[in-house]
Formats: sequence, structure tokens, C-alpha cells
Amino acid sequence: MNQQIPVAVLGATGSVGQRFISLLDGHPWFKVVALAASDRSEGKPYASACRWILSDPMPEWARTMTLVPATPSALTGARIVFSALPADLAKDLEPEFARAGFAVCSNASSYRRDEDVPLLLPEVNADHIQLVTRQRARRGWSGCIMTNPNCTSTGLTVALKALDDQFGLQRAFVVSLQALSGAGYPGVSSLDIIDNVIPNIGGEEAKVEWEPRKMLGKLGPDGVEFAPVVFSAHTNRVAVVDGHIVCASLEFAQPVSPEQAVRALSAYQAPLAARDLPSAPRPAILVRDEADRPQPRLDRMTGRGMTTVVGRVRPDPLFHLKLVVLSHNTIRGAAGGSIYNAELLVQQGLL
Amino acid sequence: MNQQIPVAVLGATGSVGQRFISLLDGHPWFKVVALAASDRSEGKPYASACRWILSDPMPEWARTMTLVPATPSALTGARIVFSALPADLAKDLEPEFARAGFAVCSNASSYRRDEDVPLLLPEVNADHIQLVTRQRARRGWSGCIMTNPNCTSTGLTVALKALDDQFGLQRAFVVSLQALSGAGYPGVSSLDIIDNVIPNIGGEEAKVEWEPRKMLGKLGPDGVEFAPVVFSAHTNRVAVVDGHIVCASLEFAQPVSPEQAVRALSAYQAPLAARDLPSAPRPAILVRDEADRPQPRLDRMTGRGMTTVVGRVRPDPLFHLKLVVLSHNTIRGAAGGSIYNAELLVQQGLL
Amino acid sequence: MNQQIPVAVLGATGSVGQRFISLLDGHPWFKVVALAASDRSEGKPYASACRWILSDPMPEWARTMTLVPATPSALTGARIVFSALPADLAKDLEPEFARAGFAVCSNASSYRRDEDVPLLLPEVNADHIQLVTRQRARRGWSGCIMTNPNCTSTGLTVALKALDDQFGLQRAFVVSLQALSGAGYPGVSSLDIIDNVIPNIGGEEAKVEWEPRKMLGKLGPDGVEFAPVVFSAHTNRVAVVDGHIVCASLEFAQPVSPEQAVRALSAYQAPLAARDLPSAPRPAILVRDEADRPQPRLDRMTGRGMTTVVGRVRPDPLFHLKLVVLSHNTIRGAAGGSIYNAELLVQQGLL
Amino acid sequence: MNQQIPVAVLGATGSVGQRFISLLDGHPWFKVVALAASDRSEGKPYASACRWILSDPMPEWARTMTLVPATPSALTGARIVFSALPADLAKDLEPEFARAGFAVCSNASSYRRDEDVPLLLPEVNADHIQLVTRQRARRGWSGCIMTNPNCTSTGLTVALKALDDQFGLQRAFVVSLQALSGAGYPGVSSLDIIDNVIPNIGGEEAKVEWEPRKMLGKLGPDGVEFAPVVFSAHTNRVAVVDGHIVCASLEFAQPVSPEQAVRALSAYQAPLAARDLPSAPRPAILVRDEADRPQPRLDRMTGRGMTTVVGRVRPDPLFHLKLVVLSHNTIRGAAGGSIYNAELLVQQGLL
Repeated sequence: MNQQIPVAVLGATGSVGQRFISLLDGHPWFKVVALAASDRSEGKPYASACRWILSDPMPEWARTMTLVPATPSALTGARIVFSALPADLAKDLEPEFARAGFAVCSNASSYRRDEDVPLLLPEVNADHIQLVTRQRARRGWSGCIMTNPNCTSTGLTVALKALDDQFGLQRAFVVSLQALSGAGYPGVSSLDIIDNVIPNIGGEEAKVEWEPRKMLGKLGPDGVEFAPVVFSAHTNRVAVVDGHIVCASLEFAQPVSPEQAVRALSAYQAPLAARDLPSAPRPAILVRDEADRPQPRLDRMTGRGMTTVVGRVRPDPLFHLKLVVLSHNTIRGAAGGSIYNAELLVQQGLL
Repeated sequence: MNQQIPVAVLGATGSVGQRFISLLDGHPWFKVVALAASDRSEGKPYASACRWILSDPMPEWARTMTLVPATPSALTGARIVFSALPADLAKDLEPEFARAGFAVCSNASSYRRDEDVPLLLPEVNADHIQLVTRQRARRGWSGCIMTNPNCTSTGLTVALKALDDQFGLQRAFVVSLQALSGAGYPGVSSLDIIDNVIPNIGGEEAKVEWEPRKMLGKLGPDGVEFAPVVFSAHTNRVAVVDGHIVCASLEFAQPVSPEQAVRALSAYQAPLAARDLPSAPRPAILVRDEADRPQPRLDRMTGRGMTTVVGRVRPDPLFHLKLVVLSHNTIRGAAGGSIYNAELLVQQGLL
Repeated sequence: MNQQIPVAVLGATGSVGQRFISLLDGHPWFKVVALAASDRSEGKPYASACRWILSDPMPEWARTMTLVPATPSALTGARIVFSALPADLAKDLEPEFARAGFAVCSNASSYRRDEDVPLLLPEVNADHIQLVTRQRARRGWSGCIMTNPNCTSTGLTVALKALDDQFGLQRAFVVSLQALSGAGYPGVSSLDIIDNVIPNIGGEEAKVEWEPRKMLGKLGPDGVEFAPVVFSAHTNRVAVVDGHIVCASLEFAQPVSPEQAVRALSAYQAPLAARDLPSAPRPAILVRDEADRPQPRLDRMTGRGMTTVVGRVRPDPLFHLKLVVLSHNTIRGAAGGSIYNAELLVQQGLL
Repeated sequence: MNQQIPVAVLGATGSVGQRFISLLDGHPWFKVVALAASDRSEGKPYASACRWILSDPMPEWARTMTLVPATPSALTGARIVFSALPADLAKDLEPEFARAGFAVCSNASSYRRDEDVPLLLPEVNADHIQLVTRQRARRGWSGCIMTNPNCTSTGLTVALKALDDQFGLQRAFVVSLQALSGAGYPGVSSLDIIDNVIPNIGGEEAKVEWEPRKMLGKLGPDGVEFAPVVFSAHTNRVAVVDGHIVCASLEFAQPVSPEQAVRALSAYQAPLAARDLPSAPRPAILVRDEADRPQPRLDRMTGRGMTTVVGRVRPDPLFHLKLVVLSHNTIRGAAGGSIYNAELLVQQGLL
């Protein structure tokens, strides 16, 4: 890997776009050659068009990069484009890029449900990346679209995978307490969340009830066979900057003790192909044994924000297990996840 | 009711004690004649011993009242004592008061599980107050102990009662997002909750899984026959001053549509005996139809903090219904609840 | 005052517009006959066009009122219009209303600096209302424009007036810690203020350095002679819902002790004309003697949000006095202030 | 520097103690050989006695270290002790350690005012470390006590030094907005600060008005000659985890323009001796030119939390300049400052 692969970021000025830039700073394989943003920012230096909201400083190389339009012709230098576009724009633009030969690693929800589009968490379903081959054949694209799941589905699915593999998950109740950065910037008004909770996040519950079933599914000759799990989700917004908490009650094919579950979670490893990639979480799952962890402020940066943190594994009076999952929503659950997906694509020789 | 009934508050300087004082200010039936606090505050004027944390100002009559010890002999002028004591102190002290002839309306958890002690929400199980007669006979007390449930059980049980009456509740998943005032003062450190969630509240889950079963139970000749409902609870602390949110997924004896549930909730009325008391919530339950309500900051003061607010009534993929419940934890869920209980005692001629 | 005076609210759906509606609910003199909002809300019932953010519930009469355009012809039933318009719209629209015969009580900054427009705090400079006569003569208007100051100038000027009257204020350093509601809704993004401070509020410092000088000035034959005080202001946004704190260091014509200052502040009364109006603060100023008050959450509702609360009066090593001022920014500092101004206009027979 | 210098931490379980451990993890010169805490933690492994509140994980070596009592005999292996003791304990214990030959680098306020004790910010007054020689001679100690200033004085003094050197500071008004971690753990109750400001921090204003004068003073043959600057300070607590903001208005011997000030601040360098130490801030001062910076959440980690960040340099109507200073209160303003002091001691051959 002597030469770095040129990449671009679509939607570079937003909350997830900023995370892409921050995480790609110093990346061993990828080099950002272009940043694209909406019409009104086009032509401006990134530093003047972007209201940077991360506590890590804006990388120097990004400050002076001139924003280009989000069109294939403006990004010809890049081979991979990371998409932090809103879903409606992504719907129109991402296929244009894929057709033009770019590998689109998207954080948008627009194509997650397409049969031939991988919905990918490398530490969970690395093999689903083979859908890219089917996608190219079917659509006649030289590029491709790959997606990462919704930020709340992300950590939840990683934890469930470790348990499903061993015990056969059947039903799951999940209630999220989600961070503000998940709503983008400016996103949630401060007057709506100081001394408050918003007990609804538009469209989120449907995603959390559907996406894990695809990712926990098996890739067969006819595509992904969905996992036979039924989910019920409630989603809430709380006054936290980063880090989504999910409380889950889980039913398996057979009784599972907390000790068995902790063993399975702690021992879990990403599939071999995904294990040693630059963004691979180390470890994939960390189980904490304190009575009051995981907590967003204290635990979200575990494994540089890529590790799924699980705690409070205990018996459930109705199903088998209760537990709490924490995942960094803009790192593992968004930009970091897309980058990890891109690394898997490269490693599998599919770029 | 020409003459006011003299009452006292135990644990008067704490967070719940302050709510008692605030809610008893101008009460039509009760007049505070004594405030009791721990040894180190004894003999001081209330205003100088208490760090007042409510936004309603400290009533003038309370400012200059001298704190007395929490002993029956120090409170001889009172007939009812409202107890905001911590559970360990309540365990020792409350029976002394009951034996000495006081009606103890307690917010502590110490005696909630005793067979002959009513665990009471007047708008739910007003008839359970008859346990007081049994309690007096059995224990030889001229006074009595009555309890109100945990603040999280409170709103939840009110909402469930309306549904259980009509549809037969069987199983319930509940996840709380609880306010800081529930932990008392100083309670939760700011460093533990700013930009954070604490995914555990010690002892709370066991209470929420047990208490509603007693309150939804039937009072028979042998005491309360518990409701055959199974609960699974997860409890969380969030950065909210007042107002507990509970997300619930509910299974009934038969399918229930959201429309049926909303009708049952909206039509619900407290038992006749409890309906017109001074602290009775008006209405008992308010159903909101906005997509993002109830919210603690906006809805906690509904019905002067006594009304249970329900929203987001919708189908559940696993059970029958999902909904969100909000209740003011230090008014309906603590001090206001105890006062409402005392009013019922008086109205029933049991004082 | 048998018949109520018909009034309208411009900008009725915003944060200050909502406060107008809440404070006018049950007003003894005024009756809201129309609510005006921007084009895209026109024709809708208020309840469906407005995202209500106050914890007091939306008054029933407002829910169903149909929003009209902000034009004189649409508001013919009203005699007073309360303006919660943004400054740029206010600049164009308010004179149209004044010309058409309406008394405009404005919260906008657009005309505060005009020589013949009163910048009014009735408990400070009630006599400045006479500028209305001059304004009408000069501009040929049958109506008029009256303004209330910026929310940060408000409480500060009330406190300074009490001291200036007796000791002759010369120089003032003031640093504000301002609430979020001052920025309107959605206003400040939650990501900008959770675990953060924003050490600047655009345009605010210039207002705070200028406005008190007009209000503390004397009305002479040639208009207001500005008070010879020099101000230096720093303004900050903090994570508080309502209630602006101002830390001030003050220099007078002669040394003033904290005791003298407390006496002057406590004894201060509004001018006779302004003292008994429905919205008059009772008291005008409250001095607290605790070491850590005033605090926004605990003290902002003093005098139903109309009282200026002062605390921590102590010597200053550089000037003479240090003190802390608190004022409710959307009640005394915005909607409540405009209503108080309108009451004075009526009481003075100038409507 | 082949061998690492053995060090110990006093008060290791508290908020500042935790920062010491975190910052000493991997330190190139120092190796922690002992952790001391209060009686009730003695004998326990650090991990079980400490409620860790930092988002950086607890270093592995610290987890299993057994807590020892805070006595010289229990810490014989160490040469430097970092003191995070409360002031009252520090008063008694620190001299015992100095007498027994330890270099005490203290964060406590107990000895800051002693004539022969350096109050030290290496990038400001590195030469004051020579007081150690005087201290040893006078007190007959083989060890010594060195102190770092209060967290609010810290960043302020660094910024003022750059300006005082060139323009001669005479008077300063300063108002702080301070973070919660400055009050230790559990420190400020969440109920006191959510949706609130506390406009007083006990004892803080006196420190901020005094400490900079010693640090900006000249070391002469008779000790430190205090700088002839007069300060007026107001101190406030706000809902921020880490990072103190100070708003300052400054008067110099002559007019200073914002441009001159920015140049002086940006060009400022620590004295040569302090410039290349492991904990030296890089840069000493960063001037930001955005209208709304510095902000605690975004800027506190500048230079790994050691850099003083200045912004909003602008003219002042009363004095000459207004500006805003930000400094990380538990890194530069506490533990990091003490470590930087210790490094200077070693580098000067004074250990």
C-alpha cells in the first residue's frame, strides 16, 4: 500500500462531514483530495464555509481546501466518495457517482433497503460486501454503493451479533437515549433539550426495527435472508453531545444466563477479513462490569470511538437478558463506520 | 371542615420535604404545625437550616418555624405526619409515630411491601385504604402507616390502571428516563450527568417491577391479591430537573388498538371517593396527540403536577401497544401523592 | 375600565410572541382579538402553526384563533399591537401600523434610538412616555411607536436607576450570562451550548452600552438628555432556559457602601404613575442577602417574572460596588415589558 | 535522563488526583510509585476506591496500585509528591513532606501567599523558582513546597503577562464563567446547575484579585515585589464540565490597540528555561480570531489542555481592551500546572 487512495467527502461541512475529515486526517490508506458541499458554499475555502463543532481541531490541510460541487465531474481525482449527504440528496446523487465509477460509502439511509446494496458493519457481516459484485452486474455500474446502518442500529447490532451467533436471538425490546450530534447541526434547538427529553426521533424506530434483521441475516445465493428476529423500538433524544445508549431486553431460542452472555460478548471477534483493518475496533466489544456503566461521557471514546461497549448484563423477568449498549454515534455509528466499510472494500480487492 | 387538621413534616429540609411545605402552603384542610429534621438542624429556624431548591419561594410561615426532632413527643400538636425520611430512618421511626396515634403518610419505601400497609394512589386503588383498619386491628395501633409508591411506579401505574380495567394487562416492558430531583439533594453530582446518562438507579428496577402489581391488585378478605402482570424494567437518570418519562410496551389479554387505548385513557376517572379531593389530579390522565409529547419541561406541571400525561400511543411489533408516560416525580410521585393519600384518609373518616 | 381594549400580537408564533399570548391570558384591561404571523402560517389556526415552547399551557382561546397577515388592514379590530417581530421586519412594518392609528408596543430594536421614540421601563422613566406626543406631532401619526429595551439592559437599568438617583452613577462594567430564550426559537443549537459557553452575542454589547444612557437620561424640552454614564459590556450565552444574570462593577460620584446601596435598592419604588398598573413588578427590586443568589432557576419568577432581583452587593477594589442583577428576559425583558408600557400609555390617557 | 524520577500523588482519588494520574501516564521523566488517599481508602486497590470521572480511561498501572496513607514514611520511594489535597489537610501535611526531603508540588492554596514559596506558572515567572533556595535556607528543609495558582488565575495571568511585559498593566476587571470540575467531585449538585448559574464561588474572588499580582511581580533580593496592578473579580459557576472562561477589561499605562495586543499575545513565548519542558504548552498562548471563540467545549484541549486561548480582543469604552481568556482548569489550571512546575524544578537542578 505504497500509494494512498484518493477519496472525497460529500456533505463535508455538516456534523458527519466534519467527523469524516477528522477521522481521515492521517489515515494510512486514504488521502482526501476533494471536499464537496452545497451550492452556496461552493468555491469557498473549507474553513470559511464550515462552522466546525468538533473539539478536535480542524486539520490544516482541510482549512484551505476549496469546496467543489457534489458532481462526479468535480471529483474526478477521487476513487472513493464518503457520503454524509441528507437522505433526499443522497437518493439522487449517489447512483450518479456509482455509475461514474466511484465507490460510494454512504452514511445516508436512502439505499440501505435495496436488495443488492450491502448494509455493512464489518465486525458483524463482512461477507455481505459480496453484494457489491451482484450490484455491479445487475446495474452495470463500475462503481458501487455501500451503506452503514443508522447510528442506533449500529452498536445494538454488534452486541446482538455476538449473542445471536451462540444463542439464537428471537425477540428484542430496545429503547434508545440518543445524543444530539445524531440530529446534525444546528439540529436540535437548545430550548427543546435543556432540562428535557424528546421522546421521539422521526423515522428512527422503523430503522431500528428493520436494519438489524438485514445485518444479522445470512447471505445466500439469492441475496440476504433476513434474520428471524422481531424488534420493538422506542427512541428518545437526551441532552448528551455524543454517544447513544440502548437499553435492551432479549429473548433467545433457549435460556441464557448473564455469565454466558458476558463470555460470548467478551470473546467476540470480528470476522477475519475485518479484524486488522485500520479502523477496526479494538476490541470489537468491551464488557464493563460496574453497576452504572456504560455512560456516554465516560465510555464513548473506547477504542477511539469504534468499540461497542456493553454493560449491566442481567436477567430479564420477561425475556432472558437485559443489557445496556453504548456506541459513539458519529464515529462508529456514522463516519468511522463508512471508513471501516471502505477499508474492507479495499482489502477484499473490490475497489 | 371548619377547623384545619394539624400536620407535621418529617425530613422537612430535603428535596421532598421542601415539596411538602410548598404544596401544603394554603392547603384547604391541613395546617403545618411542626417541621422535623435531623439532629444537626434541630432548634434552628427552617430558613437557616434548609437550602431551598424550589423555584416557588419558601412560604413565609415556614421561614421562621423552629425545627424539632423527629419524635412523637416533639410533634404532639399534629395528627398527620408526612414522612420524607430516607428509608433506613423511616423503618425505625414511622412505626413509633403510628403507635403513638399519628397517621403517617409516607413517601419512604420501608413499609410498601407490608401486607397490611396500603400502597396507595387514590385515583387507582382508593379502596386499598381499607387496609388501614386491618393494620390497626392487627398491630394495636391507634395511628397508621400509609405509603405512596416509588416516583417511577406512580405515573406508570395510573396509565396502566386505565388500560388494565378494560383490556386485562399481562406483560409490560418499561424503560424510564428519570429526573434528578428523584435522587434528593445534593443527590446526583453535576459531573455525573452533564453531557451524560447514568443507566442505572440503585434498587429502582425491583420497585418498578413489583409495586404496580400490588396497586393493580384486588383487595379481598385476605388482603391484596396481586395483579397477574409481569414487568421488566430498565431505569436511567437523565439531565432533567423534574419529571420522569417512562417508555412502555404492553401486552394485553387480547389485541388493543391505539384508538381503543386512547379512548380508555382519556375516559379514565378516579374512583368516586378520590375524585373531588383537594389534590385530585384534574384530569387524572391527559392524552396528548403530538408526535413528540409528553416532554418533561413542557408537560410536568399539567394539572398542577398531579396529572399523568400519556402520549405516542401506537402499535407494538412484539406486544400490543407502545406508549410514553410522564409524571412529576416530586409532586404526583412524592409529596403531592402523600398529601392526596392523607386527604383520602380524612374523607373516608379513617383519621 | 368596563370594556376591554382590543389588542393584537405581531410575530405571534415565536418565542416572545408566545410569552405575549401567555401574559395577555386573563389580562384585566386587554383582550387579544388577532394574532399575526409570517406568510407561511397565515390562515392556519394558531395551535397548528406554532411550536409552543412554554411550560404554561397554550390558552384555549389562542388555539383556534386563525393567524392573519401582519398588515394594518388585517388587524382593524385592534387598538394596540404588540410587536415581537425581528428587527428587520419591524423596521418596515411598525411605522405602517403607527400611521394607521395603532399604538405599537414593540420589543424590536429598530426604533429604540429614534429621538422621539420612548425607550421605556415604566418603573424607571415613566415620564419619557411624553415623547409620544412629540412623535405624533412631528410625524403626523395618529398611532405611535413605543419600545422596551433589550432584555439585558432591562434589569440592569432598573437596578442602576435606584442607585443613580441617590449616588450619581458614572461608570459601569457589566458582564452578562444570558439565557437561551433570548435568542428566540430554534435559536441556539444544543450542540453549541451543552457543556459550553458562547462568549459573544451579536450586537448585544453595543445595545447594553447605549440603551441605559437614554433611559437614565432626563426628558427636557429638546428630548432626552442622555445620562453621563460610560458603560463597558461583555455578553455571554450560557445553558439556562430563562433569566439573564448581569455582574456589574459600578463607580459613583462619591463612595457608596454596600449598606447604603442595599437601602437604596430595597427602598426603590416605581414613579407613581407606573406603580399600580396590572403588570407593575411587586416589588420593583428585590434584594437577596444570600451569598449565592440571585440564581436564574430559583429567582427568575420573582414578582411573576417582573421583579428585578439584586444580590451580592459588596465593595469593589477598583470602582465602588460590585453586584449581581437577575431579570426574566422574556417576561420583564420582553413581552411583559411591552405590556407594562402599554398599560402606562392607557393610564396616561395617550392611547 | 535515563532513569525516571519516582513520584507520588496525594489525594489521588479526587478530581484533580485523577488528572495527575492521567497526565503522569507515560510521562517521560516521572514514574508514579505511590498513590495516597484518605484513611477510609487506605489499603484498597486504586480502582476500587476511586470513582473515576475522566473520559480517558484509568491507566492499567494505577488500577491495581494499593492506596497508602498520606505520610512521609509511607511514600519513601518517591522524591516528588504532587498534592491534590484540600487546603485544610494540605496546610498540615505539606510541610511534613518538605521537611522529610520531598519536593511538594501543590495544587492547594494553603501556602501560595507565603513569601518564600513560589507561586509558579513556568511560562510566566519561571525565575520565581529561585525562592525554593531561600525557602530551604530559611526553614531548614531538604525538600520544598512549590505551588501553582488557582485555576481561574492561571489562564488569566498567562494572557496578562504577555500584555504587561509590553504595555504595563494597571487595572483589570475580570469576570469568570467557571467549569464544574473546579469544584471537585461530587462538588456541585446537578440540581444547582442544570438550567442555572451560581453567581459566587466561595473564596475565589479574593484569590483572583491577589495571585496574579505575585506572579506578575519581580523577584528581587528581598523576595517578590508585587506588580502594581489592581484587580476586581466576579466569579460564577456555569454548566460546563471543564474549561474556565474569563472576560477581562484591561487598562494599561498607555493606550493599546487590539492589533498591538494580538501581536503581543501571539508572539509571547515562555522564558527559555520553561520552553522545552515535557508539559510546556505549545504554543503558550493561542489567539483565535473568530467572533465567538474561545469556547470551553471546543477549545479547552488546545495544546493538550496546556495552552491559554485568547479571543475577542477589542477596544474597551472605559479601559483600553476587552478580551476573553480560556484555560483548562484541571489540566493547565491544576494537575498539569503542578507537573510543569516539577519539570522546571528538575531542569533547574533544584530537586
